[in-house]
Amino acid sequence: MSSNTDTELLYVIKIGGNIVDNTIVLTQFLQSFALIKAKVVLVHGGGKIATQLAKDLNIPQQLVEGRRITDGETLKIVTMVYAGLINKNIVAQLQSMGIQAMGLSGADANLIKSHKRSSESIDYGFVGDVDAVNTGLMDNLLKENISVVIAPITHDGNGQLLNTNADTIAQSIATAMSAKYAVHLIYGFEKEGVLLDVNEPNSVIKHINKEKYQSLKEEKVIFEGMLPKIDNAFLALNNGVSSVIIGKAEKLNELINGTAGTTITQS
Amino acid sequence: MSSNTDTELLYVIKIGGNIVDNTIVLTQFLQSFALIKAKVVLVHGGGKIATQLAKDLNIPQQLVEGRRITDGETLKIVTMVYAGLINKNIVAQLQSMGIQAMGLSGADANLIKSHKRSSESIDYGFVGDVDAVNTGLMDNLLKENISVVIAPITHDGNGQLLNTNADTIAQSIATAMSAKYAVHLIYGFEKEGVLLDVNEPNSVIKHINKEKYQSLKEEKVIFEGMLPKIDNAFLALNNGVSSVIIGKAEKLNELINGTAGTTITQS
Repeated sequence: MSSNTDTELLYVIKIGGNIVDNTIVLTQFLQSFALIKAKVVLVHGGGKIATQLAKDLNIPQQLVEGRRITDGETLKIVTMVYAGLINKNIVAQLQSMGIQAMGLSGADANLIKSHKRSSESIDYGFVGDVDAVNTGLMDNLLKENISVVIAPITHDGNGQLLNTNADTIAQSIATAMSAKYAVHLIYGFEKEGVLLDVNEPNSVIKHINKEKYQSLKEEKVIFEGMLPKIDNAFLALNNGVSSVIIGKAEKLNELINGTAGTTITQS
Repeated sequence: MSSNTDTELLYVIKIGGNIVDNTIVLTQFLQSFALIKAKVVLVHGGGKIATQLAKDLNIPQQLVEGRRITDGETLKIVTMVYAGLINKNIVAQLQSMGIQAMGLSGADANLIKSHKRSSESIDYGFVGDVDAVNTGLMDNLLKENISVVIAPITHDGNGQLLNTNADTIAQSIATAMSAKYAVHLIYGFEKEGVLLDVNEPNSVIKHINKEKYQSLKEEKVIFEGMLPKIDNAFLALNNGVSSVIIGKAEKLNELINGTAGTTITQS
């Protein structure tokens, strides 16, 4: 048989609190995840468990301009909840479904190196901005058919763990791996996709390319909160990612086969 | 150059609460660990952090015959503390020392499969007894010069995480890997080694083999609490491990070069 010279598929899938916080929804999502017949990286966010733990421990959570400040005690909490509790429970469940999952933080095998966000105006504390993805290691794991499950904790190379935005991690991995794979980046969130009418769940825009996005912006029909997400999607596409799919994580298999959510491509 | 046909060295090193609980001692230990010029697996125990967290969260800790019962809430705590906080901090520190460390639980890539301890007399809760080590995966990681750092949390293959004794994990890994490596199993603990006189730190017995152990037992000079540890050491030796070294983890490099601790071998 001749070898297939097509670039191999890789799905980088990000899920957030709306999946992680609900054990039943999470299990259903993982059952869909286990059906994917391609290489996969799963990036999970944190959700409410960390907030609740901080509350139970009487550790005050500071918010500045709507963003959480990660002080030393909060960093301990997110490291425990994200890299420990959530990550290992996802891995154990996937293993029970026959998936060879491996849970890692960005510190593990130097998978994601970041730097502490500089504090010109606001000091966010121990928050990291991504510098580099260890694509060689990631590729080796994927080649061994390991499904990598990533907690949004990175490190700075000097021994400091850093709390890092899961959306950014997913995008950084997708972009970095696009040198070797045809990467499809899937953002699971609470809505059906990019909506023409934010109050109408059925008004999903099925496909957006650069031209379409330009005209949608001019018509001002897209909900403003979505614009940064779409701008980020085009950033990923400009850097080699094949497509970005946004929609309900509960409909993962439909998002992949194009029957749900919004698919964003260059052209 | 001809290739070296000697079996490659592997150190499996276990550290407990006396190292993990003290950040200064832990950092010093990791600096020694970083000097090891061979493949290494580090297994860490839990220490007092989990106990303190349970106390802070008002989760009562049940002890039956001196052993902690791992109920559902306690399992969450040890998963957070062992697989999250302690594991990732060790990894980040080792990375800062130039060591390609990767932190894993037994669930990750099915590294250590266990079963829930059966409850004929005492129900220990979510406690696992080791069934199998994924030696193929471990070997692949070691071949990529990854230092594997293991948290004492395993899984049963059916989605259940299980709290598992770190000594047992270290022994299981050492035994399983001895098919491919010349494995030296190092138990770091709070004493200098096996002592002739428990009140005299300088009375370390440098070397114990089967004959010596027999005569020491007949003379009843070894502290009773040490006997299970030594029996376990011989179990490992009977199953292929090259040597078992017991001593102060703070003296890791001396334990390895034989100038500290007690070395136990078959003959």
